[in-house]
Amino acid sequence: MKFFINKVDQIVNEAIDGLLTNPNLVKLDSFPEVRVVLRKDWDKSKVAVISGGGSGHEPAHAGFVGKGMLTAAVCGDIFASPSVDAVLSAILATAGSKGCLLIIKNYTGDRLNFGLAAEQARALGLQVEIVTVDDDIALGTDVKRRGLAGTLFVHKIAGYLAEEGKSLQEIVEAAQHVIDNTISIGLSLTECQHLGQEPTMRLNDNEVELGLGIHGEPGIEVIPYAQADKLMELVVDKLAQHLPEENGKYAMIFNNMGSVSPIEMNLLLNSFRKTHLADKVEYVVGPAALMSSINMSGFSVSLLALNNDLERALIAPVNLATWQIQTFSKPNVVPHPMLPKTIPYEASSNSRVQQFIECIAELLILSEAEINKLDIQVGDGDAGSTFAIAGRRLLSSIHALPLNEPEKLLSSIGRILSRETGGSSGVLLSILFTAAGNEFSTLQDMGQALLQGLKKMNTYGGAQVGDRTMVNALQPAFEALAQQKDLQEVAKQARKGADGTKNITKTKFGRSAYLSEAVLKSVPDPGAEIVARIFERIASL
Amino acid sequence: MKFFINKVDQIVNEAIDGLLTNPNLVKLDSFPEVRVVLRKDWDKSKVAVISGGGSGHEPAHAGFVGKGMLTAAVCGDIFASPSVDAVLSAILATAGSKGCLLIIKNYTGDRLNFGLAAEQARALGLQVEIVTVDDDIALGTDVKRRGLAGTLFVHKIAGYLAEEGKSLQEIVEAAQHVIDNTISIGLSLTECQHLGQEPTMRLNDNEVELGLGIHGEPGIEVIPYAQADKLMELVVDKLAQHLPEENGKYAMIFNNMGSVSPIEMNLLLNSFRKTHLADKVEYVVGPAALMSSINMSGFSVSLLALNNDLERALIAPVNLATWQIQTFSKPNVVPHPMLPKTIPYEASSNSRVQQFIECIAELLILSEAEINKLDIQVGDGDAGSTFAIAGRRLLSSIHALPLNEPEKLLSSIGRILSRETGGSSGVLLSILFTAAGNEFSTLQDMGQALLQGLKKMNTYGGAQVGDRTMVNALQPAFEALAQQKDLQEVAKQARKGADGTKNITKTKFGRSAYLSEAVLKSVPDPGAEIVARIFERIASL
Repeated sequence: MKFFINKVDQIVNEAIDGLLTNPNLVKLDSFPEVRVVLRKDWDKSKVAVISGGGSGHEPAHAGFVGKGMLTAAVCGDIFASPSVDAVLSAILATAGSKGCLLIIKNYTGDRLNFGLAAEQARALGLQVEIVTVDDDIALGTDVKRRGLAGTLFVHKIAGYLAEEGKSLQEIVEAAQHVIDNTISIGLSLTECQHLGQEPTMRLNDNEVELGLGIHGEPGIEVIPYAQADKLMELVVDKLAQHLPEENGKYAMIFNNMGSVSPIEMNLLLNSFRKTHLADKVEYVVGPAALMSSINMSGFSVSLLALNNDLERALIAPVNLATWQIQTFSKPNVVPHPMLPKTIPYEASSNSRVQQFIECIAELLILSEAEINKLDIQVGDGDAGSTFAIAGRRLLSSIHALPLNEPEKLLSSIGRILSRETGGSSGVLLSILFTAAGNEFSTLQDMGQALLQGLKKMNTYGGAQVGDRTMVNALQPAFEALAQQKDLQEVAKQARKGADGTKNITKTKFGRSAYLSEAVLKSVPDPGAEIVARIFERIASL
Repeated sequence: MKFFINKVDQIVNEAIDGLLTNPNLVKLDSFPEVRVVLRKDWDKSKVAVISGGGSGHEPAHAGFVGKGMLTAAVCGDIFASPSVDAVLSAILATAGSKGCLLIIKNYTGDRLNFGLAAEQARALGLQVEIVTVDDDIALGTDVKRRGLAGTLFVHKIAGYLAEEGKSLQEIVEAAQHVIDNTISIGLSLTECQHLGQEPTMRLNDNEVELGLGIHGEPGIEVIPYAQADKLMELVVDKLAQHLPEENGKYAMIFNNMGSVSPIEMNLLLNSFRKTHLADKVEYVVGPAALMSSINMSGFSVSLLALNNDLERALIAPVNLATWQIQTFSKPNVVPHPMLPKTIPYEASSNSRVQQFIECIAELLILSEAEINKLDIQVGDGDAGSTFAIAGRRLLSSIHALPLNEPEKLLSSIGRILSRETGGSSGVLLSILFTAAGNEFSTLQDMGQALLQGLKKMNTYGGAQVGDRTMVNALQPAFEALAQQKDLQEVAKQARKGADGTKNITKTKFGRSAYLSEAVLKSVPDPGAEIVARIFERIASL
């Protein structure tokens, strides 16, 4: 497997330096021996809130350092607890007279190293307290529970209270309350891969792990792969067995374990919305990678039972890209606007115009096989059919058309082509006629309006004269029309343009771009050819 | 490959419904036939800013709908342009008398469908303008350029100006200025996989693509895989060739194409920081998935040449989790706090205490082989060595110890054990002595203080009496000490505890957890054994 890394032993250091492009953060100058990331604006006047642990969980923990959340984070190696000295350094660098709170997750290494650093700091006369997060309900509530993404609730609420100037004791009590009322569980399609190491493959394509840890520990259960809705139901069933308050309202953390794509995370959030717990959730943090496990393709759901104090603390704004909380609601709809009818005008009659349209439509229908035959050689083989469909629709609509009002007629033809004709040529011609109709109101000249319409078509479509498209016939024909030339001259120009497409052997449009000069020299562009035939037909009337 | 999906044809719809759990968003009630996501609070009093295109680029485009950014997003199928009717619906639902701006990326499908919808809306009397983003510099500047993540700069600045009440014409001009001054390029380790379809594998483990599109189009160049710094240099070299303003200041979008892990994205940002362009960058949006390509393991960098107006518009706050901009700076350091010396006290003498410590230390050293032998049978085989190291260090430090001040002595022993002894037993004993030192100042009783220290050790370590650890000997010995029993009685209790560990055949700690009853019944816990020997030794003095 390929990863974006330099040297394996520098991954953690380099990732921290990347984070430190945020000017609100600083590191101790003993970095990288001691990896402590701190708020730049810290003055020790309030309780310091410190978290940390192994790396590989980005943005946790250093990504949550900022005003109103963590004062500092201590970063170990990938999935390894930081040293006692590193933790002690973080404490000494941040704890003032109000003391400091260490927030750790329930893993032996963190308990020991943070624990000893706390004792050492106390020996130096500092007030230090520790809270240990154990939100994982994978093994039920009786056994030793691990810390998962629910830890972020503790960061936010302790950070908020510290910023409010609360005492260490008040913050410890609140943090412990959050811990006692938070549950989490994870589910994953793949285990995480250690960057730069040989890939492992614990699960096959039919297996999924439920109740996993964030250090690559196997899930408590290997279950069959299933659709997203079903997998989310299993997660919700586990959570429902351990809800701290059965009738409570909850805040949720919806955590990407590392490499689930954004569209899947949105889809999973919708899967959650369909479950019976959705009505109990008032806020959601995520979907986002918050407590990742390197690049695991998995997610976790954490729920915190809310009360008014917790709610206020959770939604208090912080200037952190990583902590984005929003109200969780059902999808809302607004009425769809009325789309205009295909032909939103009154019919009117004009026998000469009607004759023109009928002749053109009949020509399009009669030429279907012949134009398809040309297109088989240089394109997709369906140009004749596309034009024939347009012809049939024009014929069947002719008595509904505003034949005597050129502006509305052009617009109506544009709408018919848009709704009834497939492929990009239908959309292109629809743009031409719709824009020509819009322009006619100002220009009051059919040739000028069509020329402006063609300009729009070229703008959107990107083709120009010389590109081996129908533009090669349309452009000279419309120019002649705009110059008030007679229809014979217009037809002559269109024919010249169409025949000239045989000599265009380099083009970037459609399948012609890949064909040999020999093939192209014998076949005109089918679109240009039908345009020439149309003008020849109406010139003969 | 496994993905979090239900039915393949419902991925886009379900992901949009997931997004719509954000109560600031609504959809048209013609969903899912027409997939338009809108601001809930929209009243048509300002210019509407509409974007869209194929799905699979989440959070683009609907994730950027919100006050100060997009008014609405029109969502096609995965990598497919939305229909003309869908775009027209979005226009009709949002455009008021000030009109609307369509922001599209330079792809034929979007140009045609948004173009035709714009013409149709104009035919209905609405003011509609289109800007087309073509920020990709993979092919140089002369050829047709694609739209990439730089599009988000256009969303933000047009959205800001619209919110400020600017006219459609002013917004079009500003948007076009942004387009003319934005460049982007992408690099990826893998192509994206279409969710629920057979995986494709275009690149091998030694290949990387530079200059890729966001729809799975191959990169312009296949280059050899290299370290992150080198790959970022190649990206920066390409960008440097096309900088819109050579001496300008830039804002950057650092985009995750879908499945790069958070730690890698931080590391890549650090790679960018080392390049010569870093000094020109004042702001960065990301690292984050912003304009993804389903689950591509790649990134893109976009640069916008700043001026004061653009800067103000870019940094104006918006209530969108997806748009997080921050100043881009160099990593800053603060001085590391002075860590206390291992023994931060004045030495003092007390011959009896010195005799105790010397005897204990000698015992620890002499017992090394024997205790290791026990530990080979039930543990890692190094318990004897760990204790012997502690013994040697105690001996060598004895003349520096505050032997006559129990509180400082306990604390100093704790510090020696922390710095000099490896393994978790060193940390555990260090916690015991450090905490006992802290407690002694209040309790003024060695037994009580040690008992409290042990309690701390148990809290952090998680072991209790009965768990087959040294706690089984320490606990009864300290209890006897605290009850002022004589040293013979203390030693008797410790021995009883140590011998009792043979009968503990179920344990969750260390390697013993995996051993048979027969093995365990013949061997005491090595930690408990050395504790008993210590007390027996000092009782004999």
